[in-house]
Amino acid sequence: MDFAKIKLDKTDSQPLYRQLAEQLKKAIRQGDLRSGEKLPPIRAWKETLAISPVTATQAYELLGEDGYAVGQVGRGTFARLPQPDKPALASLPPAPPAEVPAVTPRSTFPAASFGFPDYYKSSRSALVQRASNASIGRHQGAGGSDLIILTSGGPAQELFKIDRWKTAMQLAGESLERESQLYGNAQFQYGSALGDPATRQWLAGYLSRFGFQPDPDEILLTTGSQQTLDILSRVLAGPGDYMLVESPSYVSALEIFENRGVNWLPLPLDDQGISPEQVERLADRYRPRLLYTIPTAQSPTGITLSTERRKQLVELADRYNFWIIEDDTCNEYYYESDAFLPAIKSYDRAERVIYLKSFSKLIFPAVRFGLVTAQKPLMERLSEAKAVFDRGISLPLARAVMKYAGTPVFEREVSAARQVYSERRAAIIAGFEAELAPLGCSWSKCEAGFSLQLTLPEDIRSDEFHLAAAEHGVAVLPGPIYYPVLNESRLNTVRVSFGDNAPERLREACRRLGLALNALRRKTFVPSGTPVITVV
Amino acid sequence: MDFAKIKLDKTDSQPLYRQLAEQLKKAIRQGDLRSGEKLPPIRAWKETLAISPVTATQAYELLGEDGYAVGQVGRGTFARLPQPDKPALASLPPAPPAEVPAVTPRSTFPAASFGFPDYYKSSRSALVQRASNASIGRHQGAGGSDLIILTSGGPAQELFKIDRWKTAMQLAGESLERESQLYGNAQFQYGSALGDPATRQWLAGYLSRFGFQPDPDEILLTTGSQQTLDILSRVLAGPGDYMLVESPSYVSALEIFENRGVNWLPLPLDDQGISPEQVERLADRYRPRLLYTIPTAQSPTGITLSTERRKQLVELADRYNFWIIEDDTCNEYYYESDAFLPAIKSYDRAERVIYLKSFSKLIFPAVRFGLVTAQKPLMERLSEAKAVFDRGISLPLARAVMKYAGTPVFEREVSAARQVYSERRAAIIAGFEAELAPLGCSWSKCEAGFSLQLTLPEDIRSDEFHLAAAEHGVAVLPGPIYYPVLNESRLNTVRVSFGDNAPERLREACRRLGLALNALRRKTFVPSGTPVITVV
Repeated sequence: MDFAKIKLDKTDSQPLYRQLAEQLKKAIRQGDLRSGEKLPPIRAWKETLAISPVTATQAYELLGEDGYAVGQVGRGTFARLPQPDKPALASLPPAPPAEVPAVTPRSTFPAASFGFPDYYKSSRSALVQRASNASIGRHQGAGGSDLIILTSGGPAQELFKIDRWKTAMQLAGESLERESQLYGNAQFQYGSALGDPATRQWLAGYLSRFGFQPDPDEILLTTGSQQTLDILSRVLAGPGDYMLVESPSYVSALEIFENRGVNWLPLPLDDQGISPEQVERLADRYRPRLLYTIPTAQSPTGITLSTERRKQLVELADRYNFWIIEDDTCNEYYYESDAFLPAIKSYDRAERVIYLKSFSKLIFPAVRFGLVTAQKPLMERLSEAKAVFDRGISLPLARAVMKYAGTPVFEREVSAARQVYSERRAAIIAGFEAELAPLGCSWSKCEAGFSLQLTLPEDIRSDEFHLAAAEHGVAVLPGPIYYPVLNESRLNTVRVSFGDNAPERLREACRRLGLALNALRRKTFVPSGTPVITVV
Repeated sequence: MDFAKIKLDKTDSQPLYRQLAEQLKKAIRQGDLRSGEKLPPIRAWKETLAISPVTATQAYELLGEDGYAVGQVGRGTFARLPQPDKPALASLPPAPPAEVPAVTPRSTFPAASFGFPDYYKSSRSALVQRASNASIGRHQGAGGSDLIILTSGGPAQELFKIDRWKTAMQLAGESLERESQLYGNAQFQYGSALGDPATRQWLAGYLSRFGFQPDPDEILLTTGSQQTLDILSRVLAGPGDYMLVESPSYVSALEIFENRGVNWLPLPLDDQGISPEQVERLADRYRPRLLYTIPTAQSPTGITLSTERRKQLVELADRYNFWIIEDDTCNEYYYESDAFLPAIKSYDRAERVIYLKSFSKLIFPAVRFGLVTAQKPLMERLSEAKAVFDRGISLPLARAVMKYAGTPVFEREVSAARQVYSERRAAIIAGFEAELAPLGCSWSKCEAGFSLQLTLPEDIRSDEFHLAAAEHGVAVLPGPIYYPVLNESRLNTVRVSFGDNAPERLREACRRLGLALNALRRKTFVPSGTPVITVV
């Protein structure tokens, strides 16, 4: 900020140091002076305001007492936006930011920058929908009638066991009727926001395969990951909070926390996931409140965080006092070994990890069922919040999920589905190697889940490629939508989902993507000008 | 606010009128200067800041241009917090407030004022829970073992048809399996946020009994009233918005909109509900964005809005350009005639009414199912918002509700339940007449639903009575929790729910309430001082 704007009034009854401190606080609250920005040295105020070093020092001390500044010997004093009290976080002494931040843009999502100029105010998820529709429109516009859709990110619907689900509903109904006859109908009244105790009891056991076993009262049932993230964002995130996130990441998580006004701290990924060194560097500088990670089957890349790094993340969360939100929805679809991966939560001695899971990809998406587990004091806050906005999840629904998934046959079905998805992953990667590697493409090291990130040659923009691919009969999604921060996004990436197409379709899709890429390259050299990019 | 705090700097490059305007804006944004508060007359600034009337006038004009003030000839200039752009509301020219508002406090809920000093930051619903628990504790502490609980507000659990629900789950499972076999599994993927089309189709017909029939695509399925209100609050309400509301009202609606920072405009109730004249007076003065009303079975009073007033409300909403949120959850339990009451929505030519319904009291609360219907452009916004935070409701759950409630036997069951509740209402009112009228009590004209408001003699405080009643074996809830605005609340009211106790229990409860009231009156005259009021 421009510190020359500050004016003091010597005729005011308020002492000068307090006037100075108040004006700086106001600037910090209004965002003119940003968290982490360095304040002028004490002596500088003598010039601008003609005040003594003692006065300036007193002003800085007052700022520090009120939480608006942190100082570091030999480095100076830095502005800080005080964060509101948050539950269950032991307070650590605030450490000074090491230097002025390089990149901390606010997280408004500038859709226009991605070739969707008329949709600027849209949500990210609406933009995903729109991009999907644009593929269909472009494909039909080009006279095509066989679009291979690699956009859904959903499971394969031919694997859904609707007959088993029917039986589960019947069994759930019968068990509820039996309980009604034995114990009366109290459980059908408004109940705890945590949800059906029997279902939570079963889930506590289910989770033990990931290396930890919560108390059933540390489990809150939800309608899925989005509702879970929404509750977490309301209880734990507020405007201006710093939040670590994989870059790229899950589009719904990005937009839910953006709605709360967080500042993203993006973490790039290598083959083993995010780097603890990078987390530490940013945590040390920004003191984030939260880290959101999908350690297994990271979305959209399919990258999986190594076990060693999982342990390190927990240590960092403890040392720097932030919450880890571990989104572990696709652990069951890890392809590199037959064992489940230990969750970050399994190393969580300091109770810093909030673990969430959805059953959308294990049962079918329209079931709408998920859970979150966390230490009890936090869980009480989460359940109080859910009680206000939604109460507990539907009892009959929870019970049907338990009857469906609390059985050995479910385990066998999931294991068989994993085999199917693993073969599809092999098919698409073989196709990439044959058709796209020779054209200069690379892709993320997908070890789990249904999606990966394809990186195009540097000179190809994803929004152009997305439409060219549609013309050639393949729907993919532009990669930049998945980046938390625009100027760190890679414009030459697309997201490719392979879960719901058979291997031969995936091979054909790769062939067509190769054709699209070649066509786009030729088009680039057409002398009559650049191709027109429109979104239908 | 204290206008003497404002200081101008004549050495600043910014002109004085702009400095003054900026400081006033800041005060308005920070809440030091409240919407509707009168600004000092132009000439007053000459004394406090030694500026000319021209300068002060320029400052006020700038405020007006930027939306921070409204003026009225002969009355003066009034502060105003500008409202953010909201969707789908045609803009009306802002009208000046007629005079300084008598009551427009911010809506933070001061629990301490109601005798819960250690629970200041609690939500209203947590406070209700706490008051219920306090009744149990006080009852047991007094050696009692037969508490008659008139706090739940829920339906009678002996009326739940769990056997029928079991059959509905089975039928829903079978119909889903049949559809899967016939049409494949696409509907089990992530679908529209509106929810299952078949269920919405059925509901469009169901709603016609209330005098209107929406298009199925104008219906959004939710987990109940609270989720519906939460979605509406996110799309339609923002900090500083004015919102008309019955006083007292439904506790969850109050806290959901308070979370969005609205300013309540409370509407008192007479036997026919809120008064259109009062709505018009406040609408003309404050230009509210929303009105929330429960026209039938108003919570907690049971009062029902007359048909004539329903029509007038729609006209006012059209004239003053606000949305009416009509919460019509208990229309099926109207006792004064066998016909359903026409919804406000049935008069809604201008498409200003958002209609919501829950099935908690028609099936059982743990089912978690509700709906909202509104004009299409707004519905698109609502469904886009729900897609971000929660997606569509569970398909199997929606289908089970349809199988349960889309049958003639459901209609007969609801009609029989209405008869049961009507008899309970008669019982409690007979008890009030016999036991409490002679002691100076009165009660709201309850024509529908399960609750009413009991008004105690002026000198009896509800928090004291609530504990005295528990000692005598009856749990009731203190009335002030249900008031949007503290200083309009009536401290001598309690909420009494009668839906889930048999008539003889209700008569006994009235007898005990009479004893409690007598005991409290005697206690008031004990010379050793006022009774100790503690919350366990």
